[in-house]
Amino acid sequence: MTLRLDDTHDAALRSWVASANAPDCDFPIQNLPFGVFKRRGAADAPRVGIAIGDRILDVYACHRAGLFAGQAADAEAAEAAAACDRPSLNDLAALGRGPRTALRRQAGALLKEGDDRIRSQADWERRLMPAMKDAEMSLPAVIGDYTDFYASVYHATNVGRLFRPDQPLLPNYKYLPIGYHGRASSIVASGTPIRRPCGQAKADDAARPSFGPSKVLDYEVEAGFLVGPGNALGEPIAIGEAEDHLFGICLVNDWSARDLQKWEYQPLGPFLAKSFATSVSPWVVTMEALEPFRVPAFPRPDGDPAPLPHLDQSGIAGRAGLNATFELHLLTPRMRESGNAPFRLSRANCRDLYWTPGQLLAHHASNGCNLRPGDLLGSGTLSGPAKENEGCLLELTLGGKEPIALPGGESRRFLGDGDEVILKAYCEAPGFARIGLGECRGTILPAHPLAGAGGIGPGNPSAGDSPREA
Amino acid sequence: MTLRLDDTHDAALRSWVASANAPDCDFPIQNLPFGVFKRRGAADAPRVGIAIGDRILDVYACHRAGLFAGQAADAEAAEAAAACDRPSLNDLAALGRGPRTALRRQAGALLKEGDDRIRSQADWERRLMPAMKDAEMSLPAVIGDYTDFYASVYHATNVGRLFRPDQPLLPNYKYLPIGYHGRASSIVASGTPIRRPCGQAKADDAARPSFGPSKVLDYEVEAGFLVGPGNALGEPIAIGEAEDHLFGICLVNDWSARDLQKWEYQPLGPFLAKSFATSVSPWVVTMEALEPFRVPAFPRPDGDPAPLPHLDQSGIAGRAGLNATFELHLLTPRMRESGNAPFRLSRANCRDLYWTPGQLLAHHASNGCNLRPGDLLGSGTLSGPAKENEGCLLELTLGGKEPIALPGGESRRFLGDGDEVILKAYCEAPGFARIGLGECRGTILPAHPLAGAGGIGPGNPSAGDSPREA
Repeated sequence: MTLRLDDTHDAALRSWVASANAPDCDFPIQNLPFGVFKRRGAADAPRVGIAIGDRILDVYACHRAGLFAGQAADAEAAEAAAACDRPSLNDLAALGRGPRTALRRQAGALLKEGDDRIRSQADWERRLMPAMKDAEMSLPAVIGDYTDFYASVYHATNVGRLFRPDQPLLPNYKYLPIGYHGRASSIVASGTPIRRPCGQAKADDAARPSFGPSKVLDYEVEAGFLVGPGNALGEPIAIGEAEDHLFGICLVNDWSARDLQKWEYQPLGPFLAKSFATSVSPWVVTMEALEPFRVPAFPRPDGDPAPLPHLDQSGIAGRAGLNATFELHLLTPRMRESGNAPFRLSRANCRDLYWTPGQLLAHHASNGCNLRPGDLLGSGTLSGPAKENEGCLLELTLGGKEPIALPGGESRRFLGDGDEVILKAYCEAPGFARIGLGECRGTILPAHPLAGAGGIGPGNPSAGDSPREA
Repeated sequence: MTLRLDDTHDAALRSWVASANAPDCDFPIQNLPFGVFKRRGAADAPRVGIAIGDRILDVYACHRAGLFAGQAADAEAAEAAAACDRPSLNDLAALGRGPRTALRRQAGALLKEGDDRIRSQADWERRLMPAMKDAEMSLPAVIGDYTDFYASVYHATNVGRLFRPDQPLLPNYKYLPIGYHGRASSIVASGTPIRRPCGQAKADDAARPSFGPSKVLDYEVEAGFLVGPGNALGEPIAIGEAEDHLFGICLVNDWSARDLQKWEYQPLGPFLAKSFATSVSPWVVTMEALEPFRVPAFPRPDGDPAPLPHLDQSGIAGRAGLNATFELHLLTPRMRESGNAPFRLSRANCRDLYWTPGQLLAHHASNGCNLRPGDLLGSGTLSGPAKENEGCLLELTLGGKEPIALPGGESRRFLGDGDEVILKAYCEAPGFARIGLGECRGTILPAHPLAGAGGIGPGNPSAGDSPREA
């Protein structure tokens, strides 16, 4: 199957915004992701913008200035631009592919090298295109429901092996995308500090559990898929239509307290071990921008079952997967003081997910569950076949048994107070411009003072603080 | 510890609304629950009302008519009345106990036998107090997050015994309230038809799973606790303050497809087996109205651990529990055609929950997870020590092995298409007026036609359709 490429994917396209043309820029004119921004210190409400280089296109301000309305034929673009006068992407997401594509096309035309319509407007730098450094970003959407999957067979196998060496994967794994509901209220924007949670945990050698700050705090590198148009309750989404219900992708850090998780998670799954915080990146890269990076779905090894019909994507077999590289960087307080750069702990690719974004979405709705615009589907920890592809400390340190050496002589088994965790992602393919997802950051704060606990060091668990599945 | 009783709990109180004084009325003047109503066929937006007998007090309309403002001293009641001009209880819930209590006290004064302030208003029956039969009820709140617990030790033991005869309860059960996140989008108002979900299931004797309509559809009788004022992310709620964060209780039917659940639920818990629908009753009975029915927490048997400090309610030991009876009635199509009344399948009491409402809430926030006004906490299936106390068919039929005989010669292992499930609940205690929670209803529709399946009969699973935990 061919990709849905058009002239917006032309690698030769350049913007008159010079920073967008730098080869390592996440936001070239081929990307144009959506996010929710607010001018720092200004009284205006947050609204939807488009990232271009180091600036933000204020879509609604451009719309009011007649920069979209001037293109008389394009009612869809105008409709989408009007939906950008909101503090979330939800209304834009609800409009679906047509209006979104029309808006991105017109925004691209405005930003293209040689176009001077924006620059001919008075005070355009402040009014229409604030600098990113002068803006605050919020959560991109009001996330009604957050679902977390377990789509990396490498992650599931690595974690399963810690507990069931003979049967790392359970029998259902290759038949359906395992998932569970996450907590929506505690999803926070990138940059929000993350307070170390307290909770019950029980050391393997203890007679009883005790309550206190988590000693085994971890991150999880995930791809986040934001839902576009939803479905009515009771009306499944056919697998062939699943892609039309996806808006785009972002970065997700599914913070996890492994000691709490180990004690609480049977029989109904993770709960307080995850619900204290989930971080999400500000910019959502649209499915259209990702089109050049669509690749075949994960090649199922011989002997693996074919997907059942409601998950069968053979109609788009050549492009059901996604080639996007996710990196995890760590910056400890000591590294920060020494002026060291964050240290990369892992790098993995979405193409290694056993289940595709479309399969996750179609499975989710297959029982009639209604998805709503702006709902978030997390891939689950994104790991790959090699050690350097492992997307959480639980895997990288084998449950804390093998600490990771950091520059400057430090090591980590799990996260310490003051540690900053930075996710990045980008797409690269020969013949196409590189596009990026930006960053998702979070720094660990000490546990709540009422817990009566001091700071926690670099997470050196006792034998009893061994890890837990997921 | 003493209960917080006042003159609003006086059993001798009567209303001038005659229907409220009937001995079996759910909504006497001692109750005054909140719900969201709309006059049938009228153009007005839904808003918050108070149930009294067979009528609804339109709180905001009374407020505009000066019926609360006239009571000059009571700014709190006026604030709460103003928050009733909304299509959900959320803003009222956020205000907390003070304004809610003040409003209920004034509403009670308006409705008390002898008071004629309402009846002296022009057109009061239509404007200020529509009949319930002329109103449509919506979901009581915008439920941001729905959490489902597993607080009945009888349910957990009965279900666990089906799988682990030697160890029905897992070691964590008596140390912390087991819970998991539910799906918020698919929570529906009482009366909404419930479409039988499709999904993957695998018979024990099958080599592979298959996709189709659930054959093992069940209900779960639950108490729902609606959150009042929330907490900030990262700031736990102390157990001693937990009751101040509860708004009131309602009925919840946590519909469950046991065959889907059995196949999907390891290792991360229930997902599509539950997310197709959850029904909630329209009226929320406040914690204040429940005060006469507060009882000691579940008496932990000798040998059970004492709750850890963050769950220790010994400060309110005499009233941490709740005496409320929940009933489940079934009406099959044949019973309906024959003019038979719904048949009661079970009856259980909240006082038999191992964990109290306050413990569920404090545990939920103990890791810093932020609860928001209007969030819903489900108790989990409410079962008791006797066979007739079992709150789902999974328990009542021992996983489908022992069908239940119904009047008219029918039987059920699980739910058939057209079956209507009706939950009711009420509180009774010597010396106090009986109060009720009303009803929560739902009728099973056949599976989605795209699933290519005809109707499903009364759920007679094969040996392979054996049940699953939770």
